[in-house]
Amino acid sequence: MGCLDEGHFHVELENGVTIGCAELGLEEEANTAAIEDAVKVLLQGLGEDINREGLKKTPLRVAKALRQGTRGYSQKVKDIVQGALFPEAGLDNKIGHAGGAGGLVIVRDLDLFSYCESCLLPFQVKCHVGYVPSGQRVVGLSKLSRVSDVFAKRLQEPQRLADEICLALHQGIKPAGVAIILQCTHIHFPDIESVFLDSNHQGSIKILVSSGSGVFENQKADVWVDFFSLLKFRGIDVEKVHFRGSSDLCWCPSRSSLSAKASSKFGPVNAGMITAVASILESLGEDPLRKELVGSPSRFIKWLMNFQNCNLEMKLNGFLCGGMMNSLNSNGEVNLSDKQICSELNLPFWSQCEHHLLPFHGVVHIGYLMYEGFNPIGKSLLQSIVHFYGFKLQVQERLTRQIAETISPLLGGDVIVVVEANHTCMISRGIEKFGSNTATIAVLGRFSTDPSARAMFLQSIPSASSAG
Amino acid sequence: MGCLDEGHFHVELENGVTIGCAELGLEEEANTAAIEDAVKVLLQGLGEDINREGLKKTPLRVAKALRQGTRGYSQKVKDIVQGALFPEAGLDNKIGHAGGAGGLVIVRDLDLFSYCESCLLPFQVKCHVGYVPSGQRVVGLSKLSRVSDVFAKRLQEPQRLADEICLALHQGIKPAGVAIILQCTHIHFPDIESVFLDSNHQGSIKILVSSGSGVFENQKADVWVDFFSLLKFRGIDVEKVHFRGSSDLCWCPSRSSLSAKASSKFGPVNAGMITAVASILESLGEDPLRKELVGSPSRFIKWLMNFQNCNLEMKLNGFLCGGMMNSLNSNGEVNLSDKQICSELNLPFWSQCEHHLLPFHGVVHIGYLMYEGFNPIGKSLLQSIVHFYGFKLQVQERLTRQIAETISPLLGGDVIVVVEANHTCMISRGIEKFGSNTATIAVLGRFSTDPSARAMFLQSIPSASSAG
Repeated sequence: MGCLDEGHFHVELENGVTIGCAELGLEEEANTAAIEDAVKVLLQGLGEDINREGLKKTPLRVAKALRQGTRGYSQKVKDIVQGALFPEAGLDNKIGHAGGAGGLVIVRDLDLFSYCESCLLPFQVKCHVGYVPSGQRVVGLSKLSRVSDVFAKRLQEPQRLADEICLALHQGIKPAGVAIILQCTHIHFPDIESVFLDSNHQGSIKILVSSGSGVFENQKADVWVDFFSLLKFRGIDVEKVHFRGSSDLCWCPSRSSLSAKASSKFGPVNAGMITAVASILESLGEDPLRKELVGSPSRFIKWLMNFQNCNLEMKLNGFLCGGMMNSLNSNGEVNLSDKQICSELNLPFWSQCEHHLLPFHGVVHIGYLMYEGFNPIGKSLLQSIVHFYGFKLQVQERLTRQIAETISPLLGGDVIVVVEANHTCMISRGIEKFGSNTATIAVLGRFSTDPSARAMFLQSIPSASSAG
Repeated sequence: MGCLDEGHFHVELENGVTIGCAELGLEEEANTAAIEDAVKVLLQGLGEDINREGLKKTPLRVAKALRQGTRGYSQKVKDIVQGALFPEAGLDNKIGHAGGAGGLVIVRDLDLFSYCESCLLPFQVKCHVGYVPSGQRVVGLSKLSRVSDVFAKRLQEPQRLADEICLALHQGIKPAGVAIILQCTHIHFPDIESVFLDSNHQGSIKILVSSGSGVFENQKADVWVDFFSLLKFRGIDVEKVHFRGSSDLCWCPSRSSLSAKASSKFGPVNAGMITAVASILESLGEDPLRKELVGSPSRFIKWLMNFQNCNLEMKLNGFLCGGMMNSLNSNGEVNLSDKQICSELNLPFWSQCEHHLLPFHGVVHIGYLMYEGFNPIGKSLLQSIVHFYGFKLQVQERLTRQIAETISPLLGGDVIVVVEANHTCMISRGIEKFGSNTATIAVLGRFSTDPSARAMFLQSIPSASSAG
């Protein structure tokens, strides 16, 4: 298990990390308070009033969410696996494999999330675990999920996550071998400086990594073929899987040279904010001087500063006065006393939840009533307005209202705005509702009084507009 | 909110149920021990040895899983909502709705599970929540999920679950109105007596229920149209939604007259087992004399007795000797030194996890090597063997091995068996991995030594064979 410090790891497996649950108490409270203080520094660095209503409890919420999201640091693999090893007869005495002696066991499609150690944003994982039992014993299926989760709930990097799950299961179950495949998806926020120019920004980066022990140690082994055969029809492309050591992966978008260049425009980064993030890492039980974490606080701050509280409205006014009166691609539909319903659908947005300092993103749909042929502003201006209100500490309800209020005078007063979003705060904490999705509506003028106009617009939103 | 006892409910909302978390301690331990004792009675009633290795800790696991799965009885809605109401400006002063004053907010696709109060088996719920803010305040999005979960984690019936979530959110948020849509799916096990005859058994029963308060009180209100417009492209068929009071729903398959008739064949049910189940309900904090629960213990026992430990092997031997040598619909594929790979795919099975006394079900795929044209046994015999080994307290690894060992001598010794299953124990407890799915393999004879034969069979399993 090359890259891991086996000795240390084995000790942890046996004894848990040094701070056991029973001892936490006071120390936990002190850590939570330290994280709260650090979050206040970050909010002030963003130019926010930490006493405004929506932000008052944000430091506490962030501290709780972070502790919850990194609880793997204080969990013991040994406790999880030991009670759940069951004797099970196998086919030893015949030519074949099944049950407790050989016979591949696979649990597919475990939804997990983790935190990227390079940029500190959460990433999503679809985890597939396989193992071949030996010694006439099998493990309770749910333990494969619980053990995976212990390592996901830490600051991670996909390959290391796969290796750690693999090693922990191997040592815990003592099987003939363990195989892990992770499909990881990292959100890829555009920079505020470039988002207005790049309309084809890819919103996520995906990677497929694997790890194997025992009979899976050799990535050419036949048993990998069996494993892949049973995963392939779940959407795993074998050709794209990275095996351990196959390359020095650097998937996090914050580490790409392009991103480093773009963010250099921000000038020197607030040193107090960087220190605050380093202190958060320490409070979570991490070593901020660990090689992989050294640059993480400044990368996080560079990202965070995209959401700086500044006079976007003033910039926006410049936009509005400056013109940009392109013609609009309207989808004229049904005539409503001379005016038609026009729409711009699926305008992407990027934002950050002010309650948890976690990203949310999705699409905005805009509808308005216009006399035929008269399209006062362009799609690109609407998209700019959407970006302007996205790049703030926000709540989705307010984002929806602000977009509606801003476009209403430009589009004749009869407007409807629908925002569909995925909220990281709905998956990266205790509730873990992976498939959930939020929609909000604002209606002004005729759309607020005419249900049929509203219905007509809403039905024009294609089902493919799912923010996922 | 017709059918609910509002007075009692309001008290609970304010104060939580009488047993607060802090006071639990001793009482909780006593309740867990009582459930363990009751589970031992059930296992003995099934003819099992409660000291055999796989079952030793089953009473404790069942007790923990049940307490976890019904923890809603000890949770307070007030605590959840109160800290998460945020002031948010609305569009009051203009003609329109958005933000904190009007403007529909919807959270879609929340995965929940609950326990059917009629038969005590878990059922799955996709929950969609909408509300219209008023009083310039909005609620944190995750609270819509957390509150829904409080009521899901009890013994429930779909319409009551929708009504309770609706009322709790209405009283907690004090909005203009709340709308709830639940898509509920109840597993529908066939009876062991009829499963051999009915090859078209429908494995689940689905129902769509709704509940509304305030502006959603009237199911013809325009705001319902808005809500449905934003749900319809997520697969909600408006025509099929039950509104409160629209009919006396009785969705649980255990309550259908057919099921009652079939199970009457079992003769008198073990009274000790029924008493044990009633005592479990009491330990969970329920009143076993509540009208809806009176018949539940005996319905549960009737279902449970499908998995009675009896000499299925002897019955099976009768089958095998008796003949049933129908010709087999083999899918001949590639010639491997005179023998061909033949297969029977997607044979359904029904079983129960012996670790948690929770159902698991899915499909079995069988492959074997035969000389062309020689098909010794019929598909229906293979299906019978699958059913025989399913209707037991099982683990999936053992089920796979037992099927392989039984069919091997009948099919020439070269066999492969793949079992794909959904385990209720992976969703109805702490881990809640809704999309996960387990595959196990047994290989005998040539399939254990020839990777290409194995690969050829595995690749013939269609992706549509997902057990979900």
